[in-house]
Amino acid sequence: MPTARAYAIDSPTGSFYPTTITRREPGPTEVLFDIKYAGICHSDIHTARGEWGPVNYPLVPGHELAGIVTQIGSQVTKFKVGDRVGVGCYVDSCGHCDICLGGQEQFCREAIYTYNGIGRDGLPTAGGYSTSFTGEERYILRIPDAIPLDAGAPLLCAGITTYAPLKKWGATPGKRVAVVGMGGLGHVGVQIAAALGAEVAVISQTRSKEADGRRFGASEYYALDEPGTLKKLRRSFDLMLSTVAAESDLDALLGCLKINAVFVDVGLPATPVSLLMQSLTGGNRVLAGSQLAGIDETQEMLDFCAEHGIAAQIETISGDQINEAYDKVVKSQVRYRYVIDTATI
Amino acid sequence: MPTARAYAIDSPTGSFYPTTITRREPGPTEVLFDIKYAGICHSDIHTARGEWGPVNYPLVPGHELAGIVTQIGSQVTKFKVGDRVGVGCYVDSCGHCDICLGGQEQFCREAIYTYNGIGRDGLPTAGGYSTSFTGEERYILRIPDAIPLDAGAPLLCAGITTYAPLKKWGATPGKRVAVVGMGGLGHVGVQIAAALGAEVAVISQTRSKEADGRRFGASEYYALDEPGTLKKLRRSFDLMLSTVAAESDLDALLGCLKINAVFVDVGLPATPVSLLMQSLTGGNRVLAGSQLAGIDETQEMLDFCAEHGIAAQIETISGDQINEAYDKVVKSQVRYRYVIDTATI
Repeated sequence: MPTARAYAIDSPTGSFYPTTITRREPGPTEVLFDIKYAGICHSDIHTARGEWGPVNYPLVPGHELAGIVTQIGSQVTKFKVGDRVGVGCYVDSCGHCDICLGGQEQFCREAIYTYNGIGRDGLPTAGGYSTSFTGEERYILRIPDAIPLDAGAPLLCAGITTYAPLKKWGATPGKRVAVVGMGGLGHVGVQIAAALGAEVAVISQTRSKEADGRRFGASEYYALDEPGTLKKLRRSFDLMLSTVAAESDLDALLGCLKINAVFVDVGLPATPVSLLMQSLTGGNRVLAGSQLAGIDETQEMLDFCAEHGIAAQIETISGDQINEAYDKVVKSQVRYRYVIDTATI
Repeated sequence: MPTARAYAIDSPTGSFYPTTITRREPGPTEVLFDIKYAGICHSDIHTARGEWGPVNYPLVPGHELAGIVTQIGSQVTKFKVGDRVGVGCYVDSCGHCDICLGGQEQFCREAIYTYNGIGRDGLPTAGGYSTSFTGEERYILRIPDAIPLDAGAPLLCAGITTYAPLKKWGATPGKRVAVVGMGGLGHVGVQIAAALGAEVAVISQTRSKEADGRRFGASEYYALDEPGTLKKLRRSFDLMLSTVAAESDLDALLGCLKINAVFVDVGLPATPVSLLMQSLTGGNRVLAGSQLAGIDETQEMLDFCAEHGIAAQIETISGDQINEAYDKVVKSQVRYRYVIDTATI
């Protein structure tokens, strides 16, 4: 079986260390590819540190994989050796339930996550902090030539996480859209919302990222640490996309929605939020959750990003910098996504 | 100026007492009508008892008015003397803002509520617990002959409160819709959802109202006091309409939604609720608020109810029973709406 170098962690308080893992020999419909770059998502940190429930240690996280096909199974038709490919947050699903057939494989009850899951072979799945990966061709994405593999890797999670709700809830020309928080998710969301034609505002904690926000396509920028910001923005937006995991004043944010407008959360605060129902009823407002998207829409997102020159703004790190990178992500010190160069693993 | 008998209250802890108030002589586009019946809404109680903020005492509540036109202004075209009419929660709005033009006058910044508001004449508005009412014809509804005035009065609030979100969010044939709570709002919501063609389930605290629920059109009935109810209902409904003002386990209720499904609150819990955002994101679920509707949609609702034989199930009371009725509403002892016969005022 093919082996891969990888970085793993053994406990919620542990550190990442280099190791060797095995990958499956690709089956008839599977693809083996060299991972070139792997993004570090905040979810990796929550999972690795046990903040989101039980973990199957040793854990190799990573669900933003980009690389080059090295081997294909006998029945593979979608890819050939040398193709530029990516893998996002899940690698399998049943394929025949209503949810899969409806194009939302991410919610299939049998969806298999890229790491911290159990694969069809009965073995724990290991993610992108490694040098190769074997997966079913159906769940592997094509990365268009216009997207660099390093800055493109984060699109597999951050891109689709923001693209899907912006598209579903109507970030279109003439609509005023606020992206709340401009970190790993938010900085991609701003670019996508702008490319979709909306007028984009950023609502950030401070003005420290304002120049970046405007470069990403925002025409307005607001800082929460300036008194009265949300009060001034009452009834302003057609759509708000919250990418913030930290606690925030949800009722005050909802007050910034116009009548009938929509607030989508993709930031996933770990603890329950407080919500005064009147914040929604007093304006027929909508609070929606969104999580990833199906494979077809993920490919659509990559093609859209290629067409519009969208990618993550990244800082490339080596495998031995993962531990430090985690701390910096938690402190919001990354601009805006760490990507591991797997040649250093 | 016309005078009217009325029941008023003077303080949050006071009792209702009979009094006399004046109504405006109808202006050119106004209508004066005899109120025949007035429903008691839980909102009346919240307001009268000061639970929803400042109150302009003495207060005459009531926003479910049904009666007969006795006098019309010189330019009135919509009604004639003898017509059956009703008034709901608001009696005026600017008429020219985007929100009014969009048919949602209830959210106009200049909307004037039927009671505890200030009318265009600068005087406090007084509601339906009285014998007559003067209002702009535009904000007065026509009550179809098929709807009795007594059982029809509550439709002006309870009817439109449930009709609008059921319609907007797709309670249609083939959809499984849950109505949470079967009180004043819920018992009308069940009838409307069933008439819209949905398969209707009631989720109530106990089974005490099951026979009524099935008579109103529900084909399923679930009791929260039976262990494991919500767990068994996971991923079951396309749409849930919560009419419950009491605290409830919102996350557990949201778990009963299918993927992409919608939970609408019209119950308005007075205190903030706790929400784990994952309850929404883990299934692209939607939590929406809904409050009343515009005048045109309110008329559409009345016509729909007439066509489908829908009205409230009421207990008719006299003016001197209002105090006792309030206590019973709070204790959920009414089946299902108290209506004041204004001949007794």
